[in-house]
Amino acid sequence: MTELSALWRGEGKTIALVPTMGSFHAGHLALMGQAKQLSDKVVVSLFVNPIQFGPGEDLAAYPRDLQNDTHLAESVGVDVLYAPSAEEMYPPGFQTSIRVAELGDGLCGASRPGHFDGVCTVVMKLFQQTMPHLAIFGEKDFQQLAVIRRMARDLDLSVSIIAHPTVREESGLAMSSRNRYLQEEEMEQALCLYRAICLAREMVKASAAPLSAADVCSKIVKNIHTTPGCVVEYVAIVDADSLKSCSTVNKNSRLIMAVKVNRRVRLIDNAALVEL
Amino acid sequence: MTELSALWRGEGKTIALVPTMGSFHAGHLALMGQAKQLSDKVVVSLFVNPIQFGPGEDLAAYPRDLQNDTHLAESVGVDVLYAPSAEEMYPPGFQTSIRVAELGDGLCGASRPGHFDGVCTVVMKLFQQTMPHLAIFGEKDFQQLAVIRRMARDLDLSVSIIAHPTVREESGLAMSSRNRYLQEEEMEQALCLYRAICLAREMVKASAAPLSAADVCSKIVKNIHTTPGCVVEYVAIVDADSLKSCSTVNKNSRLIMAVKVNRRVRLIDNAALVEL
Repeated sequence: MTELSALWRGEGKTIALVPTMGSFHAGHLALMGQAKQLSDKVVVSLFVNPIQFGPGEDLAAYPRDLQNDTHLAESVGVDVLYAPSAEEMYPPGFQTSIRVAELGDGLCGASRPGHFDGVCTVVMKLFQQTMPHLAIFGEKDFQQLAVIRRMARDLDLSVSIIAHPTVREESGLAMSSRNRYLQEEEMEQALCLYRAICLAREMVKASAAPLSAADVCSKIVKNIHTTPGCVVEYVAIVDADSLKSCSTVNKNSRLIMAVKVNRRVRLIDNAALVEL
Repeated sequence: MTELSALWRGEGKTIALVPTMGSFHAGHLALMGQAKQLSDKVVVSLFVNPIQFGPGEDLAAYPRDLQNDTHLAESVGVDVLYAPSAEEMYPPGFQTSIRVAELGDGLCGASRPGHFDGVCTVVMKLFQQTMPHLAIFGEKDFQQLAVIRRMARDLDLSVSIIAHPTVREESGLAMSSRNRYLQEEEMEQALCLYRAICLAREMVKASAAPLSAADVCSKIVKNIHTTPGCVVEYVAIVDADSLKSCSTVNKNSRLIMAVKVNRRVRLIDNAALVEL
């Protein structure tokens, strides 16, 4: 992979990386399409990264479908589907980790300690291996995007970090490989996240004065809990760059949520609340 | 700096980086000379890195002499002396760190918690900023060299890490910018480190059977403590790659030590014990 990237760079080609854990859905394909538009060569990495899963998380169950993923990647013109093994990525003696302290500590980081360290470490390795000029991340994983942006800035990485808007089902459900865990009736329950976004946006639209973020969050939590089987892990309105809590909703505010459906499937979603 | 390195790379030039904290002595100049031999362009970074100093350490007192350093670097044909400010390196909001867990925990890491995290983080930044093909580190800081090598390997960095043997005064004292802290009579006391190396080597030479590392260490500690004002922080015989304690002295063993002189100046030294 590195030799190929070096060759491309020598020929003056630009390289885009789309890091994924596979099980491609329309969201992934949209990121690949954007990569194709922005660069000469598109590398999609496919690696279910063990060090970003905590004990008791769904590493073993995480959906894997390399054959179908290969067809899908080919169909959108990806140049390389790069799928290293865990043994290649983390050989015996491996012991280095990268940590983005504040941005990675709250929200998903609070219930998934070490998760973002694992994400940063693997993304740095993928950047070194594939030498991209730009890398595309979905806004669906909003905290991950903020953490990676911070890492790239703090460590002076030469790769541009590009955000792609969340791709949704017609129902509004944010696309996620983990949606495969949902049974049919749970797909309905999972809509509580998108409904919460719509509710918050309506509140913002209907109010002339700046809204209290705490008031909006408390209404959203109540609303989500009207859906049987749905339990809020967190609902927060944060500054989109610092991920620190906002007191009032403003242009840079982001609603960000994690909800567990039937104590089994953990879903996340997020959105800006003020139309620009 | 990054633009210049990109330009050089575009012209097919190879780049060597010698990371330093300035106050150049003959050891630094030897590293620069080796860089000159191994590459087309030589970048020497000069940055007294605040995040690798602990509270109560000698950050403020660390010797600084940019004017003299500039002359010395010029005299050995260095292409760029790159001296960023702490504000440029760590702007407000900076929060990323790199950690090499096991290699960085013992020896100097035990008495200087966070030290090697600070070293790894700044070295990664310097690598990204200067884009070297190779980087040269002195063996004087042997644990640092092992940690950086591990980081480069674990994170798939494309830079080659080159070790340069410790440069010594005629007396045997390992060259160090911190030797400037020593008063005249302390220079004499500081020789206890080099005498310990010689003693250990003699023990190895004189013995037909493999020596117990613990026995050698205990003799060395006693020997160092015969020098008034010298207190051992640690003396260890470790595997040169893993830095784990050896039970017997072998070809890959490294004697590694930290000693405090007059409770004021902390000195380190190390050496292989078996002639290859």
